[in-house]
This record gives sequence, C-alpha cells and structure tokens, in this order.
Amino acid sequence: MRIIRSIKEMFKVSKEKRVRGKTIGFVPTMGALHEGHLSLIRRARQQNDIVVVSIFINPNQFGPKEDFKKYPRNLKQDSLLCKREGVDIIFYPDASLMYPVNYRTYVFVEKLSDCLCGKVRPGHFKGVATVVTKLFNIVSPDIAYFGQKDAQQAIIIKRMTRDLNIPVKIKVMPCLREKDGLALSSRNVYLNQKERKDATVLYEALKKAKELIRNGNSDAKKIISQIKRLINSEGITKIDYISIVDLDSLEPIQKINNNCLIALAVWIGSTRLIDNITIK
Amino acid sequence: MRIIRSIKEMFKVSKEKRVRGKTIGFVPTMGALHEGHLSLIRRARQQNDIVVVSIFINPNQFGPKEDFKKYPRNLKQDSLLCKREGVDIIFYPDASLMYPVNYRTYVFVEKLSDCLCGKVRPGHFKGVATVVTKLFNIVSPDIAYFGQKDAQQAIIIKRMTRDLNIPVKIKVMPCLREKDGLALSSRNVYLNQKERKDATVLYEALKKAKELIRNGNSDAKKIISQIKRLINSEGITKIDYISIVDLDSLEPIQKINNNCLIALAVWIGSTRLIDNITIK
Repeated sequence: MRIIRSIKEMFKVSKEKRVRGKTIGFVPTMGALHEGHLSLIRRARQQNDIVVVSIFINPNQFGPKEDFKKYPRNLKQDSLLCKREGVDIIFYPDASLMYPVNYRTYVFVEKLSDCLCGKVRPGHFKGVATVVTKLFNIVSPDIAYFGQKDAQQAIIIKRMTRDLNIPVKIKVMPCLREKDGLALSSRNVYLNQKERKDATVLYEALKKAKELIRNGNSDAKKIISQIKRLINSEGITKIDYISIVDLDSLEPIQKINNNCLIALAVWIGSTRLIDNITIK
Repeated sequence: MRIIRSIKEMFKVSKEKRVRGKTIGFVPTMGALHEGHLSLIRRARQQNDIVVVSIFINPNQFGPKEDFKKYPRNLKQDSLLCKREGVDIIFYPDASLMYPVNYRTYVFVEKLSDCLCGKVRPGHFKGVATVVTKLFNIVSPDIAYFGQKDAQQAIIIKRMTRDLNIPVKIKVMPCLREKDGLALSSRNVYLNQKERKDATVLYEALKKAKELIRNGNSDAKKIISQIKRLINSEGITKIDYISIVDLDSLEPIQKINNNCLIALAVWIGSTRLIDNITIK
C-alpha cells in the first residue's frame, strides 16, 4: 500500500492504471475510519482492480465555529485499517495543495444544498461538492462509494455527478450501526458515557416513526412531533431539524404516500449528530 | 467529419480515442464561426490527433434581456467551415440534454467573475464555467483552445481548470481582427454600415492607450479618460466599462508598472461589443 501526498503523483498513478485498463474504486473520507468506512472499502475492493482511499479533512466544509480543529486525526491507525482491507493507495494531500494561493472556484448544487444540514451549516455542501469534484478529477475513479449515513451528501453528490457529466458511478452503501442502533460516525468519540447512552434515542425515534407510517399514519407533522417528543424525553432539547422530505428534491412532505427520507440533526451535549431512515 | 448530438455517444467516442492513445484537441464555440474560431481550430488540428468542435449556444450564460434568441445560428455553414479545416467531430447537443429536468449544479469562479463583463452580465461567467466544465467532462480533451478576444473568460477558465484539477491544458490564442482593427466577433453581424464604421474606434482607442503607456504615462485614470474621450468623439456614449486591471486578479490598477489588461465593453447602437489589449 502506498501513501501519496502529491496531487500530480496521484493523478499520474491513476492515469497509468486507467491506461492499463484497470478499474479504480474510490472511497473519499476525512479519516478517523470506522466500520462504516470499512464497509465502503470492502465493497470497493470486491468491485475494482485498484482501491484508492482519500483522507482529507476538508477545511472548506467546516463553518468557522465548527469542529475542524478537534476533528479526530489518526493517520497511523487509518493506514493500518486500510492495509488490512487491501487498499492499494491512500491519497493524503495537504490543504495547501488542494487550495493553493488565489483559489477561487466552487461547485454548488442549488436547492438540495440549502435545506436540512445545509440550512444550519451554510457553505457546508458547497465545500463538499467542490472537494469531491476535485478528488474525482485527481483520482479519476470508475466507481466512488459514499455512506447513506450522510443521506443529503449522497443525494447532492449523485445530482452533481449527473449534472456536470462527471464519468464516475456513485454507489451509496447502507448506514452501519452499533449494536444498540447508534449510527457509526467519527464524531461519536466526542460523546461521554451518558451522552453515548442518550444518543441511542435517535435511531429509536426513527424506527418508531417508520412503525407509525407502516401502521397507516401519513401526517408528516404528527410523526415529526412524535419523534421530537421521544428525543426530548431523553433530556435532549437542542434539535437542528427533524424533517420528512422527498428523496429526490429534499423538499418537505406533508402527506406521506411515497418514498421519503426522515432525517434529523440533534445536539447531544456539545456534539452534533445526524441520522436518517428511508421509507419505501 | 461526424456530427454528434448525443452526450453518451460523444463521451463514448472520446473514451475510445483516449484508450487508443489519441490526443484530443477541443474548441468549444457557440457556432457562427469566423476566422477567430478557425484560427483556434487550425492550431488544434496542428497539435492533436483528433479535433472536436462543440457548437452549443448555452442558454445559461445569457441574461433574460440578452440576445440568446437572436444569436446567429448556422449549422450548415459552420459544418462546411469545420469540414474544410479537417475537424473530426462537431459536438452539437441540445439544451434539454445539457440541462435535464431538475438540473441544479453550477461552477463559479469567485471574484474573477464579479468584475468587468461579470458586473454588467450577472450570472454570465457562472454559465460559462458550468458549461465548460460539462463539455470538458464529456469530450475529455487533452488541450482546449480559447480566444484572447474574451480575455476575462480565458482567465476564468484557466483558473477554474487549475482550481478543480481538471486534466485539460488551456491554450489562449490571439484575438483576430478585421483589416481596420475591429475584433472578430459573431455579434459583428448585428452592426449596420455606420455602426460597423464607428466600431473601429474601440481598437483605435486601445492602441492609443498602449502608445500613451509606452510613452511613460502610468496613471490608469488618465488613460481611461483618454480612451473614453476618443470613443465618445464617435458619438458612442453607452459604455459598460473601460478598465485597466491586473492580469491575474482582474483587480483595477491605479499605477501601471506591470503587466496589465485594458478591457472595454461598449454599446454601438443596440450591439454590445468587447475588446481588450494586453500590456506587457
């Protein structure tokens, strides 16, 4: 396994592989790898000749008051995990290479980036769309893998890839969870013991919502109140959003009679967690 | 020579050429080809195995009150010219293919897009950057050719290509002019006989400015007044801008002591013309 820090080198290596007819599977990450990432890597390993994992904590997708500085970093551990999974290349560029002096260009997916997490994290998805476009150009993968945990991100990346005619296939893999249901996230390490326990209510509430819908409830407003009540009952009151939205447009749904996404973002102490469930 | 209307087909053909080790030279145009375009095509022909010319009048780069509807269209004549220059492929997609239902993604080059033409044509360079990104992804050229006539566009495309790590080399070719100095433009056909004659003052004024600078004048404000006076003397009073700017940042220069761009946009009757000159 190689660790490549240079954009030029990464580009050259990818081009060589492509010329030799090799397929490239790509898993873009911010490091702090957990089983969720590893499930993407394993799928990439199964489906491609070469697997590239990028580790880049993209400053452009963090707001000024967000956790860019304290975001977990552990290249050594990440390298071990990647090696164990048969990754061929870790692409690990420096921010000063990715955003050189007089950097000016941004990719923006309108409407889809303004709602849900985009509403409380302005600029976040512009940062994500931009860095993913850059990484796709540098790595030139055949297939790129994203997690359903970041449902809005996956929808935005898919739309962006289609809209800009980027020749990369996007695969979205299921969210992995702890045994008690908590969605795997690099940010879970921020939680103390009590917070960790409280956090399980998120998935409990989403499952409850799904059950209500299965039992014939279709009033989104009522279902959202139920989710909120459950979450509040754990003493969690700082809720960024609980939304039931259309899977394509991410626009709020009033009456549930089709595929939809129930997504939420809440603060457990000083940690912001997101989770979601899809209703089909 | 083939005319390809399908994005998928264009993409497939380009990929095949790339796999066989052929280099692709690309000239993106809005049709209504003139000698300026042909000079780009000839250079592309010299430097590449395959030459692709796109003809696409991009609705996204026209403002609601601009000349999208009346912009000259003549595929038959353009095809003849391309064939004569040894073009291999004309890519001629329909707007409904380029911007399918629920199209949402835009590329924007900050700061460089807000000044000069960008100030009077809001959204114009966002439209340009977006369509060029799309065309680059579809055609996957080795080298793309642009004209210095659209100086700001060329600077924006270069910055965008660098910033997004797009693997395309950008070549900017000199502005071609009529014998009397008028810069070649597809929009020159809008001019009546008198306007056509009046329009020569633009290049005269730019040349005068260059001469003043060569003679030691370095006060941008004074030089701009001189240009304005000359243009006004032809009865032309609707001036969008006359600016002397840094070649990299496009920021206005007060004192000229380095490379700079003198650029202008004026209305001759109901036709908006642009021209520029570089001082090195």
